[in-house]
Amino acid sequence: MSNAIVTAAMVAIGDELLSGRTKDKNIGHLADMLTAVGIDLEEVRIVGDDECAIVKAVNELRSVYTYVFTSGGIGPTHDDITADAISKALGVPCEHDEKALELMRAVYRSRDMEFTESRKRMARMPKGAEHIVNPVSIAPGFTIGNVHVMAGVPSVFQAMLDSLLPTLKTGAKIQSVAVNCPFGEGTIGDPLAAIQNENRETVIGSYPQFDGTTFSTQIVIRGRDAAAIEAAAAQVRQMLDLLQSKPEKTAR
Amino acid sequence: MSNAIVTAAMVAIGDELLSGRTKDKNIGHLADMLTAVGIDLEEVRIVGDDECAIVKAVNELRSVYTYVFTSGGIGPTHDDITADAISKALGVPCEHDEKALELMRAVYRSRDMEFTESRKRMARMPKGAEHIVNPVSIAPGFTIGNVHVMAGVPSVFQAMLDSLLPTLKTGAKIQSVAVNCPFGEGTIGDPLAAIQNENRETVIGSYPQFDGTTFSTQIVIRGRDAAAIEAAAAQVRQMLDLLQSKPEKTAR
Repeated sequence: MSNAIVTAAMVAIGDELLSGRTKDKNIGHLADMLTAVGIDLEEVRIVGDDECAIVKAVNELRSVYTYVFTSGGIGPTHDDITADAISKALGVPCEHDEKALELMRAVYRSRDMEFTESRKRMARMPKGAEHIVNPVSIAPGFTIGNVHVMAGVPSVFQAMLDSLLPTLKTGAKIQSVAVNCPFGEGTIGDPLAAIQNENRETVIGSYPQFDGTTFSTQIVIRGRDAAAIEAAAAQVRQMLDLLQSKPEKTAR
Repeated sequence: MSNAIVTAAMVAIGDELLSGRTKDKNIGHLADMLTAVGIDLEEVRIVGDDECAIVKAVNELRSVYTYVFTSGGIGPTHDDITADAISKALGVPCEHDEKALELMRAVYRSRDMEFTESRKRMARMPKGAEHIVNPVSIAPGFTIGNVHVMAGVPSVFQAMLDSLLPTLKTGAKIQSVAVNCPFGEGTIGDPLAAIQNENRETVIGSYPQFDGTTFSTQIVIRGRDAAAIEAAAAQVRQMLDLLQSKPEKTAR
């Protein structure tokens, strides 16, 4: 951890995410994990199993952010094209990795299973890539440059991310304080904007919740300076006390 | 419905999606709804409450896809900047919309609530925009050009989408057949690739599932021609029958 700012983007890959067949679970998990260690996730893209789309997204993002994380498309079937696409994006050949082949060959042998051409596909990665350890199903993810390529199956994605995260540089953590507000955003909008104006070291977000009848709001004060956050939070609580003394019907 | 192909992209807007505080529910819902009516969702981006990021994403996508859908950032608070950002992207002024003001003023009056400046913010939209009806909480979404701007609260997003979808042009629906496969992808990869090669009118996807011990796979055949899909599905089932007659331990 340092005071530097470390940024990241994610590319979630898979036709099934865009058709609705699969509801992504990796974006939210990555967001949680990166926030916890002090890496700022600034952009996410979801693209299909399409080489051009993957190459474009990865190349646009890797030049802008400290890290790019990808999920999906590194399995053994014909529609798993991420290793090829990342190789193309980085301009290096996509090859069977000897170390990965060895690792996987040993496991399939121990299980008395055939090491098919399909399974060998999972050992393909851009020349020069480093493994990301996969304790769940052996076939590794990989890192090339600042791009970290992981599986789409959530349990495997999570395990790979656990292997990877301790090896990354991290920045000053964004801290946050949440204040629950019984009023809708329309009631608090004006005074909250004034508080934001006075507290420029923090970013104040307001997140409406609707229970089917009335709106309430969660107010979140975020920043890298704990004292500044607490000062802004105190003003928010004071504002709510004031509003509560003159109640109004709750609506957005 | 026609035989034309209608494409779409989505921009989900909000710092809370990137910090992990909120787990997005709108992307998957939009994907389901668009697939059902015959609009192909081809790309999704998640960006923060940052004008530059919103403008960039919307402008890059609206020139490529038939439609762009956005979620989030149209509430009454200072951090709701989507209307301004979309106006900037489209190069038109962002103004209070008279029809929206009227609609909202009537509702707040009937509830004996003050029509605050914050609440009036929700009537701001790019000059020339059309309303997207919001039956949940009145303040409308809007359409400008091929960009459809909706709320981030899932119940409101869903209601707005229900209002909007019947007004859009739709294309030939992508149909799909799913075949459950008890084997991991490594077992089926080689024969499945051969089936894909023989059935170019369909796109065959394989989606690994991991229950903590073994992998199984859902094989999905997608396309716009029902007969072609059924022909490919028949070959997949035949392949599985063949494999089941010579069982092997299941692993990826």
